[in-house]
Amino acid sequence: MNVLEERILKDGMVKEGNVLKVDSFLNHQMDIKLFEEMGKEFKKRFAGKNINKILTIESSGIGIACVVAQQFDVPVVFAKKSRSINLEGEMYVAEVESFTHKCKNNVIVSKKFLTPEDHVLIIDDFLANGCALQGLIQIVQSAGATVEGIGIAIEKGFQTGGRMIRNLGYQLESLAIVDRMDASTGEIVFRQNESLASC
Amino acid sequence: MNVLEERILKDGMVKEGNVLKVDSFLNHQMDIKLFEEMGKEFKKRFAGKNINKILTIESSGIGIACVVAQQFDVPVVFAKKSRSINLEGEMYVAEVESFTHKCKNNVIVSKKFLTPEDHVLIIDDFLANGCALQGLIQIVQSAGATVEGIGIAIEKGFQTGGRMIRNLGYQLESLAIVDRMDASTGEIVFRQNESLASC
Repeated sequence: MNVLEERILKDGMVKEGNVLKVDSFLNHQMDIKLFEEMGKEFKKRFAGKNINKILTIESSGIGIACVVAQQFDVPVVFAKKSRSINLEGEMYVAEVESFTHKCKNNVIVSKKFLTPEDHVLIIDDFLANGCALQGLIQIVQSAGATVEGIGIAIEKGFQTGGRMIRNLGYQLESLAIVDRMDASTGEIVFRQNESLASC
Repeated sequence: MNVLEERILKDGMVKEGNVLKVDSFLNHQMDIKLFEEMGKEFKKRFAGKNINKILTIESSGIGIACVVAQQFDVPVVFAKKSRSINLEGEMYVAEVESFTHKCKNNVIVSKKFLTPEDHVLIIDDFLANGCALQGLIQIVQSAGATVEGIGIAIEKGFQTGGRMIRNLGYQLESLAIVDRMDASTGEIVFRQNESLASC
């Protein structure tokens, strides 16, 4: 069990509707020392990858991405979310449909900050159905850049996003994969070793 | 001239309407090494202050706050901006009116993450008219916590926010204070030494 899984068991709270509340250390109050440990783990898992930029999405991905970036010694670009497009200049825009909220959002990155020379590590706090992530991948591809890997703090393994991204051949590393959780008992079960899973 | 001022002169762009574009290193693409230098400078300027928490506001304050927090060895809380209030649980809410956009926004922090025991350093990327900052100060006061200081990357010295905050007695440290800028020539003039300014 890694440091993030331990922390989820200690301070995470399961709520009705498959909500895992981790706002005391991950996405409202942020434990920077924990982020440093997560950065070291991502550095190990993406060792040997040629990464020159980290891409994330506002808001709760930004803090993790900035601390992880110190391990890779690269800049961070954060994509903006917007219902409308009103940013100045040339932008990559991916329209993504939210499974959860039944609405469409634009994911936007300035063309200045992603080029065909970029080898990108995508970082985000949560992966469930993977809408935001699909938008980020679409944008990296639009730029002609390369997705070297995807690092996620918490993946909801019982939703479809992670499987789909792995099926597409991406190296997706989630530090904690929740396979089952129960709001009535508070139980949280992590995936033991994903490489052992078989269809 | 400090490292941030040098970078603004090198990569910042002045646009019509008193817009200073710093999206290549501060608030869209983020230079984490620069943020580390900024963190060291804030640590010097707030030396001796008893700070146990950093408060910032989404989105572009978060990256700076997380890297600055490493110097102070404290957690970061980021306030959420929302037109409506739909977050679960007990929240501190400050309604702030935007001078620029002529609209009202709510600045929101969970009551769990600010208490009377907290000694708070507020961090943000920009200070112009100071609306967001006023909301953050209001929230710290609502919690019965103490504002130990305010650290800003870039202050537009020709707008009213900075003077008002200093007049209220807060220690406000802006790493770069732009006193004048000109979109037609691209000229940017920084305040030399604010302590020498007199009324």
